[in-house]
Amino acid sequence: MEFPVKQDIIQKAIDELYIKDFSKATIREVVAVAAQVEKETGLEIIHMEMGVPGLPAAEIGVQAEIKALKDGVASIYPVLDGLPELKKEASRFIKAFIDLDISSEGCIPVVGSMQSTFMSFLVAGQCEENKDTILFIDPGFPVQKQQAVVLGYKYETFDVYDYRGDKLKEKLESYLSKGNISCIIYSNPNNPAWFCLKESELKIIGELATKYDTIVIEDLAYFAMDFRKDLGIPFQAPYQVSVGKYTDNYLLLISGSKAFSYAGERIAVAAISDKLYRRNYSGLTKRYGSGTFGSVFVHRVFYGITAGAPHAAQYALAAMMKAASDGEFSFLDDVKEYGRRARKLKDIFLNHGFGIVYDNDLGEEIADGFYFTIRYPGMTGGQLMAALVPFGITAISLDTTGSNQQGLRACTSFIKDNQYQLLEERLTAFNKLYPLE
Amino acid sequence: MEFPVKQDIIQKAIDELYIKDFSKATIREVVAVAAQVEKETGLEIIHMEMGVPGLPAAEIGVQAEIKALKDGVASIYPVLDGLPELKKEASRFIKAFIDLDISSEGCIPVVGSMQSTFMSFLVAGQCEENKDTILFIDPGFPVQKQQAVVLGYKYETFDVYDYRGDKLKEKLESYLSKGNISCIIYSNPNNPAWFCLKESELKIIGELATKYDTIVIEDLAYFAMDFRKDLGIPFQAPYQVSVGKYTDNYLLLISGSKAFSYAGERIAVAAISDKLYRRNYSGLTKRYGSGTFGSVFVHRVFYGITAGAPHAAQYALAAMMKAASDGEFSFLDDVKEYGRRARKLKDIFLNHGFGIVYDNDLGEEIADGFYFTIRYPGMTGGQLMAALVPFGITAISLDTTGSNQQGLRACTSFIKDNQYQLLEERLTAFNKLYPLE
Repeated sequence: MEFPVKQDIIQKAIDELYIKDFSKATIREVVAVAAQVEKETGLEIIHMEMGVPGLPAAEIGVQAEIKALKDGVASIYPVLDGLPELKKEASRFIKAFIDLDISSEGCIPVVGSMQSTFMSFLVAGQCEENKDTILFIDPGFPVQKQQAVVLGYKYETFDVYDYRGDKLKEKLESYLSKGNISCIIYSNPNNPAWFCLKESELKIIGELATKYDTIVIEDLAYFAMDFRKDLGIPFQAPYQVSVGKYTDNYLLLISGSKAFSYAGERIAVAAISDKLYRRNYSGLTKRYGSGTFGSVFVHRVFYGITAGAPHAAQYALAAMMKAASDGEFSFLDDVKEYGRRARKLKDIFLNHGFGIVYDNDLGEEIADGFYFTIRYPGMTGGQLMAALVPFGITAISLDTTGSNQQGLRACTSFIKDNQYQLLEERLTAFNKLYPLE
Repeated sequence: MEFPVKQDIIQKAIDELYIKDFSKATIREVVAVAAQVEKETGLEIIHMEMGVPGLPAAEIGVQAEIKALKDGVASIYPVLDGLPELKKEASRFIKAFIDLDISSEGCIPVVGSMQSTFMSFLVAGQCEENKDTILFIDPGFPVQKQQAVVLGYKYETFDVYDYRGDKLKEKLESYLSKGNISCIIYSNPNNPAWFCLKESELKIIGELATKYDTIVIEDLAYFAMDFRKDLGIPFQAPYQVSVGKYTDNYLLLISGSKAFSYAGERIAVAAISDKLYRRNYSGLTKRYGSGTFGSVFVHRVFYGITAGAPHAAQYALAAMMKAASDGEFSFLDDVKEYGRRARKLKDIFLNHGFGIVYDNDLGEEIADGFYFTIRYPGMTGGQLMAALVPFGITAISLDTTGSNQQGLRACTSFIKDNQYQLLEERLTAFNKLYPLE
């Protein structure tokens, strides 16, 4: 195979998909163009655009789900606020790996963390009339902004790149002091940039959330996957860091998709702090007659959207969490593979003149994990994305994620063993076409 | 056991649950009071308040779901708009049993019909700025009105009891002519009253939906369960009647919960007519940049709420629909049990001076099925509900369903074989306390 692939082949794919400006393509458009090029040329694409698990589902979960189906749960409506065993195990799992106390009542099994984000935005936006705006600490998962659009909610956003550490306080306060922020959302580890907010930063967020009475939605989609530390030993430090240590106004989104490679079954837990669960808000009382945050979340919103989470999958997640808390299932051992891949890929990119965009956590080198970010001298993110496609390399531009930096997000989940060598060869060809100074 | 149960035992349960006016109790409150009385007295309650399936899940579905899990689907995100095989089989199932042509593109697997109702309301309400109100043809499923409250949408409602047949036209037109109705929703067979709108009535609804350009949401939760006709032979009349014969502005909600007793896995299909799927609306273009009803429904709203339906359960529904369309699985044979129960229960109630509230479809005696409605001379619905509890009989008042009639909805799904005799004895005691004239 000669690199780069002829431009007319790529242009044909772009034209056929009616993409006006490929440098601004969405994930799905990049996937579609790559698929077209793959079909046309037989080229093996190095896929780094999709953030989906590339490992088999945890067997403990699959077995528990099959057993539940054999036991007849398919006909029985799940209890709305969740299988008691899963609620109990989720509460225990949170204690074991985050060292937070959230009672089982507030641990709600939901249809993927996507649903808990949607519901959290929805309810937070109804709590108080003057608080009508979501604050995104970016970069972030683009679909969460789409959720705000679906709901017709306003949002504010800033790229945290220039506001790590103490600088975060003033920046956050500039938004919160306006009094219109219903909730703050961020992911930790960060999707797409894989930096991790530190205790000192979470403390700032938590204390300001209390001061300005806003709700923090902590998206733990990549729970405990900061592989620099061993976060996988139950009931023993170090723990996954959380804003829950610094405020009562929080809820955690714990996904089964990445940590347990259980994305297919759409199962996650929304864990609402005890105080937030029981808190009354004037807007909720006005709309629903009565109701605390937790009861509106469960009995009004969750009931009205999906009436519970799929029954059998709840048994799967309960079994996985129980085994993890019991110390019988080292769930991080499987997903550490992502970290190993990231290390190898980053080294290859770095050897070919690329840089890591989000490269440190307050001076400490960033972790190797599910995602990493790359840049190339003299190219915008959009240009770099488009320039790599002819070399059979796909990733998404950071500017689709709320980042102001020029670069790409690359995901390690689909990388196959033979592709390090391919990447090496292709980046060598890339350097010839786009020589370094 | 002496009947009635002593009033102080019941009052104690009511007080402990902080129910102010028991005659207005919700389903869940009735369940809770009954459970308390059951615990206190050891009395076997004849439960008719819950509308949940009481039969085992269809085995074909369970086996297909287990196989999918063994094949590894738990780790793999479902395709957003649905498993291709399920989409194809849903389209074919609709042709086989409703005789409508909806292409597989428009058949979207969702997390229960609750989700498709929520999403349909949401999108319909965003289509055109002036169309901001949902019209309920009542009685109906109370949670659907809660969905409107969650969304902050306005709604209008009327009890169709007095507007069957030709009278429906003028009544509907009185709402539609205002120009503010985004969508019309009803269930057929009706939850809670089990009447069935006839072809002539669906024709009125369909033609007016076209005339006033509004969307019809046809809730087929009790698909094909009008047991007066044999609706279970694929590709052969008679078919489940549908508004889809009379307008292009429709979507069907087809649930796996009742027809296949598959409620636990939260799997259903929203089937959007081809024309509606591809239709552009000004409000959607304004909000989302571009987009047809179908693409907004799937790629914006469904993506943003649950990012698809649980993967393994989609294989279950595909297998059940395929077997039904192939004529290898007579899915109605299992659920006909509900009709047999209804007949026996109705006879016992009728023999004890009760009447059926919604008793005919334009002169034809109503079908026996999942639900039926009862009244007792001189009592309101609330009074009757409260009066039956001391006899260990539970059902819900019709006024919680948008009905103006005084009576109860009774569900047949939990009735056990020994309970016909119990009902007979208890109603005899009931007649003594509340003698007929």
